[in-house]
Amino acid sequence: MKIGFIGIGVMGQSMVRNLMKKGYDVSVYNRTKAKAEAVVQEGAHWCDSPGACAADKDVVITIVDYPKDVEEVYFGSAGIIENAREGSVLIDMTTTSPKLSKRIYEAAARRGMAALDAPVSGGDVGAEKGTLSIMVGGDEDVFKTCLPVFEAMGTNIIYEGGPGAGQHTKMANQIAIAGAVSGVCEALAYAKAVGLDEQTMLDSISAGAAGSFQMSNTAPRILKNDFAPGFFVKHYIKDMKIAREEAEEASAHLEVLDKVLEMYESLEKEGYGDLGTQALIKYYEQ
Amino acid sequence: MKIGFIGIGVMGQSMVRNLMKKGYDVSVYNRTKAKAEAVVQEGAHWCDSPGACAADKDVVITIVDYPKDVEEVYFGSAGIIENAREGSVLIDMTTTSPKLSKRIYEAAARRGMAALDAPVSGGDVGAEKGTLSIMVGGDEDVFKTCLPVFEAMGTNIIYEGGPGAGQHTKMANQIAIAGAVSGVCEALAYAKAVGLDEQTMLDSISAGAAGSFQMSNTAPRILKNDFAPGFFVKHYIKDMKIAREEAEEASAHLEVLDKVLEMYESLEKEGYGDLGTQALIKYYEQ
Repeated sequence: MKIGFIGIGVMGQSMVRNLMKKGYDVSVYNRTKAKAEAVVQEGAHWCDSPGACAADKDVVITIVDYPKDVEEVYFGSAGIIENAREGSVLIDMTTTSPKLSKRIYEAAARRGMAALDAPVSGGDVGAEKGTLSIMVGGDEDVFKTCLPVFEAMGTNIIYEGGPGAGQHTKMANQIAIAGAVSGVCEALAYAKAVGLDEQTMLDSISAGAAGSFQMSNTAPRILKNDFAPGFFVKHYIKDMKIAREEAEEASAHLEVLDKVLEMYESLEKEGYGDLGTQALIKYYEQ
Repeated sequence: MKIGFIGIGVMGQSMVRNLMKKGYDVSVYNRTKAKAEAVVQEGAHWCDSPGACAADKDVVITIVDYPKDVEEVYFGSAGIIENAREGSVLIDMTTTSPKLSKRIYEAAARRGMAALDAPVSGGDVGAEKGTLSIMVGGDEDVFKTCLPVFEAMGTNIIYEGGPGAGQHTKMANQIAIAGAVSGVCEALAYAKAVGLDEQTMLDSISAGAAGSFQMSNTAPRILKNDFAPGFFVKHYIKDMKIAREEAEEASAHLEVLDKVLEMYESLEKEGYGDLGTQALIKYYEQ
């Protein structure tokens, strides 16, 4: 089976490797060609445009940064929609807007192609180990056909519903994280302010009702003053903005999300957009 | 060793039973006598006032509802401070204000007694099984002396620092929960608003970066429309108000805590104070 893969960042590289390991014939395109060199040396075929990468493939996978990048690779000149063949399946794994996923789904359908939205969680480590969680929206029969492709990259692969449902599920994930990570940062800020030993405090509460992935994984980085990005502040802001917009359109008022987004935006203004999301603690140190 | 135990609610009953199982001679007092009848039948001695319950004991334990109740049993007429003997240890296990813990510590010291603040987490189930987390503030040598008493009731028993540090740690716990539980409720509110299947959404995200005790334990109750109190909204409001006050005095501005407290207060006004904290979802359904 021939796969075109567009977006060879940290995640994309690992995903391409895992697809090749399973015997898929993978062609790649990336805006910055240098980032694709490693996988090309390992056997992927380089293409000079998204359209060339999409042409004559069974499956086209994209994972780029922002909704505008998704729009460009799908709808831009020499884009995917114009160049992919009838009968192919277009899978966008970028975390992007559910509305954009629906637009791709409809544009694909008009040209006799299928489309799935399939954002992931699990980060660079999950991409490398092939243990990503993949949240898939679109037609269920298309999802089933593509399952072996997803299984090359992830382990927790769930069909969420029609077009956009994968993105909506990812948004729910990002919304829950906003609460959890701010709770952890506020507990740490409180502990520091009142003079508790922060590590002892964490050891005391992590196993109980206050416990979370964010507490177990983010708090230790904060205590080590390690702000290297597992997940960028700037990308999290992008996700939260999409979530807020979708929530508002659906008449859901998510006040904690709004508050946390506001905090992260203030951090970005101060130049912290390229740090990891644990940098939220800096908001409380101002 | 003789123990006076004041506050025989759901938690207190189980804690008294666990102390008696370890061979402690336990006397009890409760404002509503009927609630103490079961443990009295099982061998605890009834006392007619907090003071009578505290007199001639080695250790006096209190776990009541609100800071005003703590004040009354310690400082009121026929109270503990007036009636406990020199050399005894007073242990307040109520979640209450760190300031009040310091006041008890100082009043106890003036009369030749020791005092520890030792709030718990783990709820009614932890109290019954003797697996409470106990966060202890006060003098470390007193903490060490009392360790066997704590070990009769809990498993995760940590010395947090001087007087009030147990309460401060519990406050950090409650602060982290505010973020976590609101994140879970907002993810569910979003899922419902945009038409996702909520259970599928939870199954998709619970094991990853959005996962938390609150997601695994609170969200399923919400989906079953089960609002029975594991932990009362009204008690959580009391805790968050203490946390907010202490944070503000220490110049820590916890905006998510403030927001979540505001939401719960609006629910209490609508008559939801006796529901469990998972009732936060109702805020989003208005």
